[in-house]
Amino acid sequence: MRAGVVGGGSWGTALAALLARRGHEVRLWTRREAIASAIRATRTNEAHLPGVPLPADLDATSDLERAVANAEVIFVALPSEVCRGIYRELRSLLPGGATLVSATKGLEVDTLQRMTEVAAEEAPGHGLAVLSGPSFAWEVAREQPTAVVVASRDLAVAEGLQRAVAGRTFRAYSSDDVTGVELAGALKNVIAIAAGIVDGLGYGHNTVAALLTRGLAEITRLAVARGGRADTLAGLAGLGDLVLTCTGGLSRNRSVGQALGRGQSLADALAAVGTAEGVRSTRAACALAAAAGIDLPIALQMRSVLYDNKPPREAVEALMLRSLKRE
Amino acid sequence: MRAGVVGGGSWGTALAALLARRGHEVRLWTRREAIASAIRATRTNEAHLPGVPLPADLDATSDLERAVANAEVIFVALPSEVCRGIYRELRSLLPGGATLVSATKGLEVDTLQRMTEVAAEEAPGHGLAVLSGPSFAWEVAREQPTAVVVASRDLAVAEGLQRAVAGRTFRAYSSDDVTGVELAGALKNVIAIAAGIVDGLGYGHNTVAALLTRGLAEITRLAVARGGRADTLAGLAGLGDLVLTCTGGLSRNRSVGQALGRGQSLADALAAVGTAEGVRSTRAACALAAAAGIDLPIALQMRSVLYDNKPPREAVEALMLRSLKRE
Repeated sequence: MRAGVVGGGSWGTALAALLARRGHEVRLWTRREAIASAIRATRTNEAHLPGVPLPADLDATSDLERAVANAEVIFVALPSEVCRGIYRELRSLLPGGATLVSATKGLEVDTLQRMTEVAAEEAPGHGLAVLSGPSFAWEVAREQPTAVVVASRDLAVAEGLQRAVAGRTFRAYSSDDVTGVELAGALKNVIAIAAGIVDGLGYGHNTVAALLTRGLAEITRLAVARGGRADTLAGLAGLGDLVLTCTGGLSRNRSVGQALGRGQSLADALAAVGTAEGVRSTRAACALAAAAGIDLPIALQMRSVLYDNKPPREAVEALMLRSLKRE
Repeated sequence: MRAGVVGGGSWGTALAALLARRGHEVRLWTRREAIASAIRATRTNEAHLPGVPLPADLDATSDLERAVANAEVIFVALPSEVCRGIYRELRSLLPGGATLVSATKGLEVDTLQRMTEVAAEEAPGHGLAVLSGPSFAWEVAREQPTAVVVASRDLAVAEGLQRAVAGRTFRAYSSDDVTGVELAGALKNVIAIAAGIVDGLGYGHNTVAALLTRGLAEITRLAVARGGRADTLAGLAGLGDLVLTCTGGLSRNRSVGQALGRGQSLADALAAVGTAEGVRSTRAACALAAAAGIDLPIALQMRSVLYDNKPPREAVEALMLRSLKRE
């Protein structure tokens, strides 16, 4: 398979390395030529995936046209806010018949669209899929056993991708629930911020476990209201990624929450970690929920913390003091 | 409320302290008079909950009759293998109208019965409930915010207990799914051993997250086949406690798995942690699954590790190399 990977951050680089190790012909696109040339010269991406040796035949380029020329599959692993622009650029560059695979876990805030919806608008006429699940880039790059979901409305496309990416330490399950997989990936980051806050405030594991449980119920309600399936949320893209993000320690979204819980400002917290999709996704989740008439207590409290300066402790106490009820 | 708590380990002591702080009149029974008298003298249980100050009005006794005399509710927090004997002893001691609340997370291996089934056989004629959920004793004792489930077939009983235990930092949700709550509490320990093994072998967070996701699906299948509800397994007693036990770091079941993963023998691993319910529950889970015609890949691999000396790495690889399929 000839594959392009668009996005030279940690996840794009790990995906490109994975594909190259499977024997695919891979070109990795990064916006900055300095990173692309460093990857070619040093066989590492020290800026985003330090210390991980990359396959010798992994090509890197800052020329988007070159990255996707002749590619059968193009993976896009970029922050959600730049995806529309990139898909627009790709429109005239994509080979006919190429499949687009979104590896982004976020929603477009202004339109509330999922990334494959954005892709379909900006670069129509291509097969579409999403790859998601509990997959810290560094661990994938280090070949730690990892399992993900590949979803496409066309199950044959999902199954083809499943075979293309899978190997001894990387398993892919196929699904046709694109909506559920994309919403799971975006919404779990909202709960991860809350879990970080709980930790940053000094609460214990019991509290995080309760929050995570209520959080999965909450994002499942919203995903189902938007057309996703509950069993997708209970699977790798939902529960699996939620557990990873809320307890794994390496997540940027959880780190932002931790910093807030310790009393830092959002600006300082974001300065330390860079992009955290959950900050934007919180706003998108609340807007989607309002439109669907769904109650999202955790997301609403997070929105108050992130956008209205509500003290994190008050938000957590409001969640814990909700009136008693049946589970 | 007058309450007896039978079992002076960490969980029984934490429950007794919680109830006493709510203003209930509580007697805590421990088999060893040395521990009971130490609790009375020092207001701590240094053997099982070191460093946690206990309420001044919490009574402790090694006289079972005295512990339950006049009690309206008796909580039993003992290892599963001693429960039948204790419920048999309680039969002639229990006040009429007293409610029994099981706080044990295990199954009886020989009969495959849940603890409320054992209680109903040995001490019939009493209201029965189970209390379960993500609740490390030390954190409950330290008043870290915690949420649990109280289930009884008689929802009025569950709701009465819910009000009796709940306070600012301890929330209880009521349920009538006794079967689901008890099976969740017992079966999650099987997955916790597997999670410990994965960690002990040196695998990363991605692997644990995938295992936990597949594990919840597996124990849900069994619980539903036995009459529990899937939403109970997705709640605090299932997902919540599974996350806590697999990632929280304080679990004895996970510790046993870690030790096995690092190459220790089961005997050495158990010697270090004392009781680990999951070792027995693995055998019970496999027997229940065989009777119900349910496939439990993780539990079967754990049984091979625990009882047939299968090398842990082979067991994990067998799980990760299962053939690709749809989620």
